[in-house]
Amino acid sequence: MKVYVAEGSGFCFGVKRAMDMAFKYAVKNRGKKVYSLHEIIHNPQEVVRLEKAGARHVEKISSIEKGAAAIISTHGVTGLEQDRLKEKCGGVLDTTCPYVKKIHNIVKKLADENYQVIIAGDADHLEVKSILGYAGEGAVVVASAREASKLKLREKVGVVSQTTNNMAMYIEVLGEVQKKAFVSRYSEVRAFNTICDATKNRQAATLELAKKVDVLIIVGGKNSANTKRLYELGKTVLPWVYHVETASEIKKAWFAGKKAAGVSAGASTPEKGIIDAVKRIKMIGEN
Amino acid sequence: MKVYVAEGSGFCFGVKRAMDMAFKYAVKNRGKKVYSLHEIIHNPQEVVRLEKAGARHVEKISSIEKGAAAIISTHGVTGLEQDRLKEKCGGVLDTTCPYVKKIHNIVKKLADENYQVIIAGDADHLEVKSILGYAGEGAVVVASAREASKLKLREKVGVVSQTTNNMAMYIEVLGEVQKKAFVSRYSEVRAFNTICDATKNRQAATLELAKKVDVLIIVGGKNSANTKRLYELGKTVLPWVYHVETASEIKKAWFAGKKAAGVSAGASTPEKGIIDAVKRIKMIGEN
Repeated sequence: MKVYVAEGSGFCFGVKRAMDMAFKYAVKNRGKKVYSLHEIIHNPQEVVRLEKAGARHVEKISSIEKGAAAIISTHGVTGLEQDRLKEKCGGVLDTTCPYVKKIHNIVKKLADENYQVIIAGDADHLEVKSILGYAGEGAVVVASAREASKLKLREKVGVVSQTTNNMAMYIEVLGEVQKKAFVSRYSEVRAFNTICDATKNRQAATLELAKKVDVLIIVGGKNSANTKRLYELGKTVLPWVYHVETASEIKKAWFAGKKAAGVSAGASTPEKGIIDAVKRIKMIGEN
Repeated sequence: MKVYVAEGSGFCFGVKRAMDMAFKYAVKNRGKKVYSLHEIIHNPQEVVRLEKAGARHVEKISSIEKGAAAIISTHGVTGLEQDRLKEKCGGVLDTTCPYVKKIHNIVKKLADENYQVIIAGDADHLEVKSILGYAGEGAVVVASAREASKLKLREKVGVVSQTTNNMAMYIEVLGEVQKKAFVSRYSEVRAFNTICDATKNRQAATLELAKKVDVLIIVGGKNSANTKRLYELGKTVLPWVYHVETASEIKKAWFAGKKAAGVSAGASTPEKGIIDAVKRIKMIGEN
């Protein structure tokens, strides 16, 4: 069995940075209470690893003890949440991805200039929730062109995308936003490319890989938006695509009669997860 | 033969305004030399009518006598041309459509704020030429999505449309501009709806009419962009569409075996042109 790994698989710049910062912070504050508000990145195994280093994962600010140290996850929080953390905690480490922070700044400026902000992305995702916190009154989230086609819009509209979106989907959403916005004269749609390069490159490499292998394994958190998108993308060209969180979930039956396997992994998948998956597929291929 | 006329056919607000202004100016300046730079509107019969009222049509500023009175056509001129006219002429009447003037202001502001301006429209059309004059360095004109797909763009792009464009075409162009612009991170595409309502309504009414008649006659100048677009639009749903400048061009053979005829006319077609066409079709239907 030949096994290929998609280029750009695994930790992106923002995730690497957040993990490094969080671990250093946990070590520095050893002996003190340290909390990670939300999952530091969307990978359960890495969340556990950080818990072992001393930073307990909580989902609510109310679960954080007064005076304790807090870590803001790579997906960011709203300005309101940030203020509450600063008020309540002894120290706050902000690991928000700089590319997400940049979107916060863009939508804040748009809202200040009276644009209605549209965010193309998943409304339940932490990154989108944090962006929404800066996007002002009337801001809305749309997950698809179909959702965008139902919008009621103001005269001036600003549009951004979740960093991990697919570009084709984003451009489709923009087309619908324009159709809805352009019913009144001089209405304006101001769109920003906020999809990060790592996402774009990883998606392109995964699509290429899906075309040359017989079976594709996507490794990463089941709650990771960008990992799920790799799975969806693979499915557009290959029927045999499987999404696993760890190598142990990979089944022998998936490789019966197959000659070449591909492995791709989301931005929140550690290198070990990729290496373990490759090892397991090779082992299956030998038996 | 039943004959239907599309709603919104004939002179739009901007054309009506320009013709009123130009005739009053010609009358006021009777006895003096008066020139209309370019065709006041894109209808040869109306140009002749204005010439008879005393305003001679010329295509170049150099053809205007020093100290004479000049009329700027409804499609507008560049700032440079305006300055030259003011310098050379005894008086200048500006009949530029306020909706075109608004586009001049939008692109000037975009250029000042360092946006590369893209104009969706016909590069040879006077309106587009006048807009281009305010659009700053690096501004380009594209007539189709295919042309837009070949663009090399700067990081910040501003897009406007010729007032008489088709909205679906404009949104297609924007999709391509976004695809080209969004190769770099945080690139921005700022699009304005500058298609005028009269155009939008006339196109919608013509399309509806084309669906219910057997033959469609489009009346208007052969050099009128918005009239040509009505013809193209009609052709998308009906094979029997004819573009004439005056009623005399309407042929009997076009109506053989047909029961219902439609008439639509561009923004630069005078009411008389529409009435004459309807009369001629009815006469043909009776014989």
